[in-house]
Amino acid sequence: MELGLNAIWVMLGAILVIFMQSGFVLLEAGSTRMKNAGHIAGKTIFTLGIVSLVFWAVGYALIFGSQGNSLIGWGDYFGFDMKNVPEGSPVAPTVMFIFQLAFAAISMAVAFGGFAERAKLSAYLIFAIFFSIIVYPIIAHWVWGGGWLAEHGKQDFAGSTVVHLTGAMAALAATILLKPRLGKYNKNGTPNEIPGHNQVFTTLGVMLLWVGWFGFNASSTITVGDGSFFGFVAINTQLGAAAGAVAALLIAWAVNGKADISVMLNGALAGLVAITASCAFVDSWAAIVIGLVAGVVVFASMRFFEKLRIDDPIYALSAHGTAGVWGTLSNGLFATPELVEKVGVGKPGLLYGGGLEQLGVQAMGVVVCGAFAFVVSYVILSIIKAVIGLRVTEEEETIGLDLSEHGSYGYPEHLKAGSSASGKAAPVHPSA
Amino acid sequence: MELGLNAIWVMLGAILVIFMQSGFVLLEAGSTRMKNAGHIAGKTIFTLGIVSLVFWAVGYALIFGSQGNSLIGWGDYFGFDMKNVPEGSPVAPTVMFIFQLAFAAISMAVAFGGFAERAKLSAYLIFAIFFSIIVYPIIAHWVWGGGWLAEHGKQDFAGSTVVHLTGAMAALAATILLKPRLGKYNKNGTPNEIPGHNQVFTTLGVMLLWVGWFGFNASSTITVGDGSFFGFVAINTQLGAAAGAVAALLIAWAVNGKADISVMLNGALAGLVAITASCAFVDSWAAIVIGLVAGVVVFASMRFFEKLRIDDPIYALSAHGTAGVWGTLSNGLFATPELVEKVGVGKPGLLYGGGLEQLGVQAMGVVVCGAFAFVVSYVILSIIKAVIGLRVTEEEETIGLDLSEHGSYGYPEHLKAGSSASGKAAPVHPSA
Amino acid sequence: MELGLNAIWVMLGAILVIFMQSGFVLLEAGSTRMKNAGHIAGKTIFTLGIVSLVFWAVGYALIFGSQGNSLIGWGDYFGFDMKNVPEGSPVAPTVMFIFQLAFAAISMAVAFGGFAERAKLSAYLIFAIFFSIIVYPIIAHWVWGGGWLAEHGKQDFAGSTVVHLTGAMAALAATILLKPRLGKYNKNGTPNEIPGHNQVFTTLGVMLLWVGWFGFNASSTITVGDGSFFGFVAINTQLGAAAGAVAALLIAWAVNGKADISVMLNGALAGLVAITASCAFVDSWAAIVIGLVAGVVVFASMRFFEKLRIDDPIYALSAHGTAGVWGTLSNGLFATPELVEKVGVGKPGLLYGGGLEQLGVQAMGVVVCGAFAFVVSYVILSIIKAVIGLRVTEEEETIGLDLSEHGSYGYPEHLKAGSSASGKAAPVHPSA
Repeated sequence: MELGLNAIWVMLGAILVIFMQSGFVLLEAGSTRMKNAGHIAGKTIFTLGIVSLVFWAVGYALIFGSQGNSLIGWGDYFGFDMKNVPEGSPVAPTVMFIFQLAFAAISMAVAFGGFAERAKLSAYLIFAIFFSIIVYPIIAHWVWGGGWLAEHGKQDFAGSTVVHLTGAMAALAATILLKPRLGKYNKNGTPNEIPGHNQVFTTLGVMLLWVGWFGFNASSTITVGDGSFFGFVAINTQLGAAAGAVAALLIAWAVNGKADISVMLNGALAGLVAITASCAFVDSWAAIVIGLVAGVVVFASMRFFEKLRIDDPIYALSAHGTAGVWGTLSNGLFATPELVEKVGVGKPGLLYGGGLEQLGVQAMGVVVCGAFAFVVSYVILSIIKAVIGLRVTEEEETIGLDLSEHGSYGYPEHLKAGSSASGKAAPVHPSA
Repeated sequence: MELGLNAIWVMLGAILVIFMQSGFVLLEAGSTRMKNAGHIAGKTIFTLGIVSLVFWAVGYALIFGSQGNSLIGWGDYFGFDMKNVPEGSPVAPTVMFIFQLAFAAISMAVAFGGFAERAKLSAYLIFAIFFSIIVYPIIAHWVWGGGWLAEHGKQDFAGSTVVHLTGAMAALAATILLKPRLGKYNKNGTPNEIPGHNQVFTTLGVMLLWVGWFGFNASSTITVGDGSFFGFVAINTQLGAAAGAVAALLIAWAVNGKADISVMLNGALAGLVAITASCAFVDSWAAIVIGLVAGVVVFASMRFFEKLRIDDPIYALSAHGTAGVWGTLSNGLFATPELVEKVGVGKPGLLYGGGLEQLGVQAMGVVVCGAFAFVVSYVILSIIKAVIGLRVTEEEETIGLDLSEHGSYGYPEHLKAGSSASGKAAPVHPSA
Repeated sequence: MELGLNAIWVMLGAILVIFMQSGFVLLEAGSTRMKNAGHIAGKTIFTLGIVSLVFWAVGYALIFGSQGNSLIGWGDYFGFDMKNVPEGSPVAPTVMFIFQLAFAAISMAVAFGGFAERAKLSAYLIFAIFFSIIVYPIIAHWVWGGGWLAEHGKQDFAGSTVVHLTGAMAALAATILLKPRLGKYNKNGTPNEIPGHNQVFTTLGVMLLWVGWFGFNASSTITVGDGSFFGFVAINTQLGAAAGAVAALLIAWAVNGKADISVMLNGALAGLVAITASCAFVDSWAAIVIGLVAGVVVFASMRFFEKLRIDDPIYALSAHGTAGVWGTLSNGLFATPELVEKVGVGKPGLLYGGGLEQLGVQAMGVVVCGAFAFVVSYVILSIIKAVIGLRVTEEEETIGLDLSEHGSYGYPEHLKAGSSASGKAAPVHPSA
């Protein structure tokens, strides 16, 4: 009975996290230009397909395989026989598998934010395979699969580090290797804004991600018990997101005199990313503080990366990276003794007399996981770049990836007789 | 075990009701013009953030606070310590809290329908705070928090009055104080149609609301029991929506010779709003009747308000207000003795020998709650109007709120070289 | 307790399957032209309304009515008194009803794919009624209601045949009777591409369908038990979809030199449709094989029907029909003894020593159900055609169904001063 109850709860979580892919479709397509929209949307489904197959074959095994050590999981490849439920499991392995698969696919989707509007389709295909084998599973094993960071008591309830920072570091490697989009920076180094084509899409995308995040965070309790604790986690999630959205809009309004919707949306995401590590470890007032800080931090981070000439079209580095770091560290400040005992991982934070110990573990986790994800992704992408190339040609980028990578516009009626955002006339769709 | 089961069911409901915000993003953005679309979509997230924070701080306490009286709840502010489950609770307080928060946010979203395409962003911000403190919680306390209407046995299973009528009355106050949009009415008083820019969005928005409504209505059973009763509530919800959609399309087709999709969509919503009060109190044939009447009534109401020179861009007054009144009253007609006994609130309706008693209670609830919501909202908005102003300038309204309130178009590629629906050329986006 | 657990699980499934209507709104609207988009989206809600009412009145009774025989169900009309739970039921009848209603509505939505961009609104209305009475329920009774195919042990876990093939055969009848859209075929018989107007919509539509499919397949276990089996079904569903998407993109890329997103999306759908019959009967490696084959088959099928001069705008015949046939047959190859015993329907497949027996039953089911759905739909549509006509006039089709059937554009700002995809100038919206 208990097993059935937990299974429904975790399966609902898995469905919600897979549903978050819809949020990425909209967020990424809406944040980019019409000439690339079909490509951006479509590659989300295509790469979800790849990640699912690879995760079944080897990814899950490298996290949770029963013959692993503190560095890597091993054994139980190819979806081993999961149909039996081992004595003492809180939830059936089949359900755990689909929940974990959904998380891996989110990390992948975050990473692809850094590829937007200039990477070849073939680069997505190949990177999706390698990321799902030698980047994400390793880090997930360290923290969640009984690896060395788990042994150190690193707290990351639902993946500020494991999912979001990992994805963002891969995005950083990609955006550095790909270089900025044509027209993003002027010769003197000043940036141009390249606005996304559809803010209803980006807004809806963030709202769908917000909804899916209840699966991400609250279903990470795995057990249902009396249903009180997952409700608490859900409240903290809601408050973190809310505080992030409000803080980001207000800071942008105050600093720039412009109540920027894109910043506000990234504030909501940053609040969600930040509370992901800490949602089960902190009291609700702290969830609000974490969200507020995330909203301010994401605003500063967006400006910072733009000035650094790092062209990050979907703001993956700020919303998932910077906020992921802040969220992970926030445990080291706000984790309460009561909740740490309940969850059973690590120690209380600085504000509760825990000193710098947990904060140190959290910082170590951020540095090591972030560095690992960045370096390995950088190496993989460099090899892809050397062998087949990462980026489309200038001409292809100008006409848009819908035409260059897929042979037809995603918006054939809008673009046929119109012009793309690059200011150059787009060719008439040949077969329309 | 029972607690865990109920918690999953109510938590699923909370997620679905929060998901309904996606429906509002689409419904409102699709029903308005491109030049305002980013603003309309974005403010939904921003105000959801505000409501969430305020509801945690004080809103919930004013409904359910343990030291309240029959007029208002009191105590248990700032999300008090909800982590324990009191003996005898059907569901954990944490889960109940997030479910209730989701409802408050829906009522707020309904209210903002009346603000569309002309209110300042700052007016949204301030009204969201006050609505979440002194409008919604008071009415919710009266009906659901053990207040005086609960004592009278008012039946409002999931909030035709508490959520929808309350929101619609705030929208009415706003639309009166804001006055019609530029170009809505000619000098001789005849109305012009200002069609929304994207009917795929509005249709999808209604479909998402429909789906979310299963959380709204069916999860309001709170307890799962043998799972039969919430299924019954879900069937009535489906039938009410279906009947509303069909009736509205057919009446518009018959009367206007035009199978108007906007009317049909409002018919579906009206069916949902109407069945919200009665879904647990009436038999399924009555759910169909309630939906059919709602579909006809919403069509008449849309025409009525337009003639009254009340410019209600999203039709919040008709779909949520008029249908909310009808739905609440319908209990007084159709509530069956068997179901009234099961739910344990009020008495059977006129058709089942209950006479006018329950109908009188329902009518009193509508009048008092409607008047309270209208008057208090009107006062709050009048103060905002006097102090900072409610409405953007004519020039700002003409160029659109995306530019005036947020500094950039939501559709920069569509509007840069195009023209807004007002017929005037929109300026080129400065930074594109 | 068990009853409550199962009820939550099946109710979640029902909500997810109703949510799939959102996917159809987007998939169909995105796959067609702007001038028809409001119509295409809106009719989905309208026909969902009709199907819901008819299914309550008679459809459910014709499947599961307690006085039926092996050809048809009978009795228990008009939503009979479902509020009691008969001894021994795995789930409350109310919940089962809403789950089954959701399935009927999906089959209807598939069928309407064949009507796109040229059928009259009145034809939708009338066909929806008859399809929900004498097409879908009959086939559903044969396979799931204890009818003659159930007696033969036909395996169709969640409806590759019952839902998808049935809908696709009705679409085939419609597309034959309606004839191709204007401009689809040249005088010499060569086809023109008529691309859909919004690939973000189609992609998002497929993603929403994918998510909803977990309700379709995994909730078809009905019972929760220890939660292991529905997790297994969910994994197979995910893998089937993933394999379909990947295979379809790669085959299109290899054959046409064009990584066609539309083909990839139809590959994902085909994988989902194919795994629908077999998800509970086959091992996960076989789910991948089934999905891969579905992805290739859908690509070939799309080309085949286009060459046959069958104009199927949404590719319903290929994604739901051809893949539905393949999925149903795949049970006869891959069903394992262990899983057949667990589900308790039919026999193992060819690869597990079952010989041709189960494959024969599956083939018979496909032929008989397919033929029944086609012939009855063809007769119904022929009568509608003779009495009121199926297709709008050439002039109406040219200006678009938004104007001709509903009196206003779904995209009034886009089309007012623009031109439709037909290459002819669209008239200015009269009331804008």
